[in-house]
Amino acid sequence: MKLQEISKSLGISCESDLEVSGLNTLKDASNSEISFLENKKYLSDLLTTKAGAVFVTPDLIDQVPIDTIALVCDNPYINLAKCSQFFAPKIIETDGNEPIIGEDTIIMNNVFIGKNTQIGLNCRLMSGVFIGDNVIIGNNVTLYPNVVIYRDCVVGNDVMIHAGTVIGSDGFGFAHTKDGKYIKIYQNGNVIIGNNVEIGANCAIDRAAFRSTTIEDGARLDNLIHIAHNCIVGKGSILTGQVGLAGSTILKEYVVMAGQSAVTGHLEIAPFTTISARGVVSKSITEPKKQWAGFPLMEHKSWLKLQAKITRLLIKDNK
Amino acid sequence: MKLQEISKSLGISCESDLEVSGLNTLKDASNSEISFLENKKYLSDLLTTKAGAVFVTPDLIDQVPIDTIALVCDNPYINLAKCSQFFAPKIIETDGNEPIIGEDTIIMNNVFIGKNTQIGLNCRLMSGVFIGDNVIIGNNVTLYPNVVIYRDCVVGNDVMIHAGTVIGSDGFGFAHTKDGKYIKIYQNGNVIIGNNVEIGANCAIDRAAFRSTTIEDGARLDNLIHIAHNCIVGKGSILTGQVGLAGSTILKEYVVMAGQSAVTGHLEIAPFTTISARGVVSKSITEPKKQWAGFPLMEHKSWLKLQAKITRLLIKDNK
Amino acid sequence: MKLQEISKSLGISCESDLEVSGLNTLKDASNSEISFLENKKYLSDLLTTKAGAVFVTPDLIDQVPIDTIALVCDNPYINLAKCSQFFAPKIIETDGNEPIIGEDTIIMNNVFIGKNTQIGLNCRLMSGVFIGDNVIIGNNVTLYPNVVIYRDCVVGNDVMIHAGTVIGSDGFGFAHTKDGKYIKIYQNGNVIIGNNVEIGANCAIDRAAFRSTTIEDGARLDNLIHIAHNCIVGKGSILTGQVGLAGSTILKEYVVMAGQSAVTGHLEIAPFTTISARGVVSKSITEPKKQWAGFPLMEHKSWLKLQAKITRLLIKDNK
Repeated sequence: MKLQEISKSLGISCESDLEVSGLNTLKDASNSEISFLENKKYLSDLLTTKAGAVFVTPDLIDQVPIDTIALVCDNPYINLAKCSQFFAPKIIETDGNEPIIGEDTIIMNNVFIGKNTQIGLNCRLMSGVFIGDNVIIGNNVTLYPNVVIYRDCVVGNDVMIHAGTVIGSDGFGFAHTKDGKYIKIYQNGNVIIGNNVEIGANCAIDRAAFRSTTIEDGARLDNLIHIAHNCIVGKGSILTGQVGLAGSTILKEYVVMAGQSAVTGHLEIAPFTTISARGVVSKSITEPKKQWAGFPLMEHKSWLKLQAKITRLLIKDNK
Repeated sequence: MKLQEISKSLGISCESDLEVSGLNTLKDASNSEISFLENKKYLSDLLTTKAGAVFVTPDLIDQVPIDTIALVCDNPYINLAKCSQFFAPKIIETDGNEPIIGEDTIIMNNVFIGKNTQIGLNCRLMSGVFIGDNVIIGNNVTLYPNVVIYRDCVVGNDVMIHAGTVIGSDGFGFAHTKDGKYIKIYQNGNVIIGNNVEIGANCAIDRAAFRSTTIEDGARLDNLIHIAHNCIVGKGSILTGQVGLAGSTILKEYVVMAGQSAVTGHLEIAPFTTISARGVVSKSITEPKKQWAGFPLMEHKSWLKLQAKITRLLIKDNK
Repeated sequence: MKLQEISKSLGISCESDLEVSGLNTLKDASNSEISFLENKKYLSDLLTTKAGAVFVTPDLIDQVPIDTIALVCDNPYINLAKCSQFFAPKIIETDGNEPIIGEDTIIMNNVFIGKNTQIGLNCRLMSGVFIGDNVIIGNNVTLYPNVVIYRDCVVGNDVMIHAGTVIGSDGFGFAHTKDGKYIKIYQNGNVIIGNNVEIGANCAIDRAAFRSTTIEDGARLDNLIHIAHNCIVGKGSILTGQVGLAGSTILKEYVVMAGQSAVTGHLEIAPFTTISARGVVSKSITEPKKQWAGFPLMEHKSWLKLQAKITRLLIKDNK
């Protein structure tokens, strides 16, 4: 799609015939992609962006790099949201190649497999499994009944996903208009699951807005876990029951999150960190190999002391 | 069903041949419905009820309005529970009309659609979707794989529901007998979803005991959310991952609930309220446009101060 | 499988031709089963075990009962994990008898029923239900759409399970190797659900590593509940929305757990205990009929006092 068609549809003046391939963040955008700057916190990313074009407010026009086209508007984020629909893949492909199924793979009844999809060797797709279009599944993969893999996702080798888990549902993204409407940001990325991963039952792992939500090699996820868009669950990480990660969380390798713990968005957690049950991470953790607890989060040993103090406070007053 | 048949089956004496249409609360019952009073907190509702009949304890017989028949018994709630079964619709209809499907609607393989059900124009029902009997679905609705909509529910226009989400499962209701048994209160209401709503993956939204659980226009729900029976999620409200609402919660318009926050039952939350991550609302919030946090809930700014104090308490003691 | 084949495959010397039937804990193992001791906390169980053989470290060889074969190794738990695969039943049986279906049972379209499975009288299996191999289902059971019951599980009479719930997915078990790999402990047990149980939508109840995860008669479970492997949910217990139980939790009869409350693993909770919303049980509760709250858990009345004090602390400092 030409940039001038996009800008015209949004009421922004721009004559460029750049062929736009999609949307992306300032950091990751290529010269065929459009990006945006809404939050000035990310101004430094604007200065160095490689984006082909960028939605910016009028005051920032001078900060746009010389090779990047400025799409000047009052609401960059709303324009990005409107624009995202142009790049949304079809929900159901009607054309394309029949799926390729590897040798010794068992496909039970009532399984749906989309167009242009590839399933590896020696897999088991149990009844009610849904695999969307353009998916790649490795070898020795077991998908228990009613697992859903949305289009464009990638699953590695030696992966086991338990019943009812959903991979690749839309991330929770939308822009607010002044009159109380929400404009959906179409989630045009995907989910990539590495090798030797096991995921429990009834989890939900959202696809990325741009690029990929990633579950790295060797990770272990228990049941009813929520992974928001653009998260990275590091190599060998362990997430137990009902853990929740908000958007763009990065767990480095071998992070352990105990039951019902959570991370608020856009944070990074150092390798070999342990978060105790019910802990909430609301700031990035930079020092590796420590154990944390509580909300607000503190070192686990401090949390234990604090609880002892609170108990004494309670006893003292009872006297 | 005649009132005398019902009362006879429960061992309550009553000769009325009132044709009973169902059960309801004292406030909402019509003159063809039966209601009950168990908790004297609701005595004022008894005085003004329009119910055709009402289960009451002997001491309250004089408080029953003149046009309402008193069904005198020791355990009004247990009798209501027993009675609820008489009005439970069939789990699976065998008679009725074939569904009506609107133009340009795509129905993939392995989709079930019940009797007397209507699907609008330009919808997409993906594999494994189940739509029960007597359901109405609007136009431009996308139901991702394995979405389940129980019988009698209503879905508006421009709605998207992600994979594995369940709409209309039974609310969690039962009466306790003295000998430790539970008598199910059949959930004879439904769920109504407005226009322009998006719901994430693997959520569970329960049908009402009487009348409707309602998700109003423009609401946005993330993944793994639990909405109990008879809740109202107000217009434009935003519920993020793993939020839980107990029964009869009312969120007014544009309430925002952050990750893993929750509301205990029978509360109302004012418009434009924000509940921070992990907050628990256990009292109604009447003042609009404020942000709250913690459990017990307090204003977000108080919560921040409190946490700072708790941290100081911890440091002081460490010296 | 002969013990000498097993030990050979693990590089442990042992000449016994004992026919091994499976794995189990020290306490529960029979003389045809293998057990292990990794955590010396359980040394007393070793002294009295009836196991046919046991993985132990060299220092404990003298503690092994005379009728039990010592399988001496450095990493008993890792060897147990490796060994668990030998006893894992097939994920999909290809041989065996066609299922037996009781009279008046309705099976909708797109239902899968495995080999050697038995369904009782007057059941309703709705579309998308999956019942694995070797399952036993009682009479008057309603399985709503897309319920998944893994192989070998048992469901009693008069049970209702709402849409999307998964019964019998693998428990979250694996042994860690020194080089950061996880060896799956195949979950060779099952789930047993008693009579007159109702389970909500999109729950996940894991099968046991050995023996059974058990939901006893009359229990009531709400939506989105996580029950880990080897838990016992006692008779008449009530678990509301989004409750989570870690592995080997035992709830005695009539325990009530309010919304989003949780239990960490290997604990026992006394009869008629109530855990308030969001409470976390991290020690066993021995005294029955009390109400608890908070994390760390305290008596509900203490928790109320504590919160009042914390509020005063906040107010004092504001002056």
